[in-house]
Amino acid sequence: MKYQKFISDRTQFYQLLYPLNLELGETLNHVQIAYRTWGTLNTKGDNAILICHGFTANADAEVWWSALFGEGKTFDPNLDFIVCSNILGSCYGSTGATSINPETSKPYGSDFPAITIRDMVRSQYELMQGLGIPKWKLVIGGSLGGMQTLEWALTYPELVKAIAPIAASGRHSAWSIALAEAQRQAIYADPYWQNGNYDQDLPPHQGLAIARMIATCSYYSRPDFEQRFPRQQNQFNNFAIANYLHDEGEKFLKRFDANVYVSLSKAMDSHDLGRNRGDYHSVLASIHQPTLVVAIGSDLLYFPEEQQELAKFIPNSEIVQLQSTQGHDTFLLDLENLNHLLVDFCKD
Amino acid sequence: MKYQKFISDRTQFYQLLYPLNLELGETLNHVQIAYRTWGTLNTKGDNAILICHGFTANADAEVWWSALFGEGKTFDPNLDFIVCSNILGSCYGSTGATSINPETSKPYGSDFPAITIRDMVRSQYELMQGLGIPKWKLVIGGSLGGMQTLEWALTYPELVKAIAPIAASGRHSAWSIALAEAQRQAIYADPYWQNGNYDQDLPPHQGLAIARMIATCSYYSRPDFEQRFPRQQNQFNNFAIANYLHDEGEKFLKRFDANVYVSLSKAMDSHDLGRNRGDYHSVLASIHQPTLVVAIGSDLLYFPEEQQELAKFIPNSEIVQLQSTQGHDTFLLDLENLNHLLVDFCKD
Repeated sequence: MKYQKFISDRTQFYQLLYPLNLELGETLNHVQIAYRTWGTLNTKGDNAILICHGFTANADAEVWWSALFGEGKTFDPNLDFIVCSNILGSCYGSTGATSINPETSKPYGSDFPAITIRDMVRSQYELMQGLGIPKWKLVIGGSLGGMQTLEWALTYPELVKAIAPIAASGRHSAWSIALAEAQRQAIYADPYWQNGNYDQDLPPHQGLAIARMIATCSYYSRPDFEQRFPRQQNQFNNFAIANYLHDEGEKFLKRFDANVYVSLSKAMDSHDLGRNRGDYHSVLASIHQPTLVVAIGSDLLYFPEEQQELAKFIPNSEIVQLQSTQGHDTFLLDLENLNHLLVDFCKD
Repeated sequence: MKYQKFISDRTQFYQLLYPLNLELGETLNHVQIAYRTWGTLNTKGDNAILICHGFTANADAEVWWSALFGEGKTFDPNLDFIVCSNILGSCYGSTGATSINPETSKPYGSDFPAITIRDMVRSQYELMQGLGIPKWKLVIGGSLGGMQTLEWALTYPELVKAIAPIAASGRHSAWSIALAEAQRQAIYADPYWQNGNYDQDLPPHQGLAIARMIATCSYYSRPDFEQRFPRQQNQFNNFAIANYLHDEGEKFLKRFDANVYVSLSKAMDSHDLGRNRGDYHSVLASIHQPTLVVAIGSDLLYFPEEQQELAKFIPNSEIVQLQSTQGHDTFLLDLENLNHLLVDFCKD
């Protein structure tokens, strides 16, 4: 598997017992979910936490959220049983566009069916059953992870005790869809894209790198770029920020696949807690779990207004805001403050 | 000329008398500046106003700023002599990458030399001389037009009585450069780009359309997209916002050229009032003209913080903020409020 090196040796793999009937009508056979766990499920089964990861992350929450792990922290393996699974559709061990299609014995590629956030959550539910977990004491995640977190509260209301969606919205806004569409178009415009039927050795690298460049802008902020990559006196070209974007694009090619990018990007666009459930605000009002909504003041992808809307309509909710100026990716950066907020919430 | 239909019949053309020595070292021969005027220069020569236009606009300020024109408004042709010239480097009548290079008798294309905002201003100065205008009572513009406005105050301090930069910064930020770089990369990735040496009948259309899609996001805002293109109940694809972006990209191809786009985009990146003048804040402090800085609260391209910085350091300045939620392009949309602010400023 091409992306094997991004999968920790400690990753485990769960084979779903039944075909997964997807929300949009298709069926996936032989679904595998990659996951990691920390700590032990206690006999009462009431100490399980599910971490949902973002767009291009993996099950190694201990790596990308390391500062939240440890004694007295949000994720304490001495006390809790913590689970993080690679999302359905990804390329880090769970079934996705780079996986072998059992019907053709070749990678799915562009044949991978359209999936939604609810499908990701339903595959996590199957894993939960496999692991014998009766209930999550907390489901938590940032960005796409926050979308899954919210879906968990509504799809399996009796299996979730509390949720903490971070830097996420309850439905993908026209703004977020616009940015995603521009990224997908950059991929589609690459002549190597071939409608997704590209040779794995000749993937649409240039298009995927540009998609990542656009996305990178939306993950940070004006003051963050200004601080990290200020223009120099008397400079008129060859700017540090441009070189940084190129590096981000280039690095990304080694660890991600264009079909997976498009598939997950479309899944995020489909995100709407109200879909086939009713009016958006009424659906938010039906979330009964204690909810900590975390907003980031400088987030330019999922603006604080969207988290304020969540908190306004979810009855048993509180909202806190991280003041960092680093933009959306603050949820991966300002971990000391995030940890404090989460530890406080979990105490209640 | 391919873009002739976007040039009003009332446009006039001024041929520069001398070669234009560009800031970055090269020389442009036989420079032409397209311009329009409204009203008449009075005998004292103290009623001239210069309008500087944005990235992809033209000299027809009466069209794109129509609501600012008329009796008692900011631009009153019965009282003032109003001038708007198509910027150097553009494709609407002034010399730019689509113009014929006198040395080769072919369009410059990728051979068009690198230009800066100061070069645009210097070519406007030549036009000013040609029209016999002794001094501008006001230089005004939004976005790239605001950059020219600020440069005017510093390059020809004795020829400018007052300035009104709108939704602009005094130096292109890392943020703005990042967005511009992603747009240029989308153009470069188009196989028809050919390093800018493309056949005029086979231009890099797909790349230019994607650049415009990215740019369009930065011209508006989350609430604006949300209001104009809300997702529908139970919708999971084929979103109105995506169709809108495609339309914007498609329309743009008919009226703009990829080499011109890259040339002007790089000119904006070069923008820094401090370049070869000294410390940025000290240079701002040397602007002596009465200055109305107009900020837009929801601007995601040139954030209000950047206009606040201008107002903080320009001694004789005041700052006003348009409250529209429509983002950067508010300077082309919320014209009633903008007109009030400008009329008030001009009264003083």
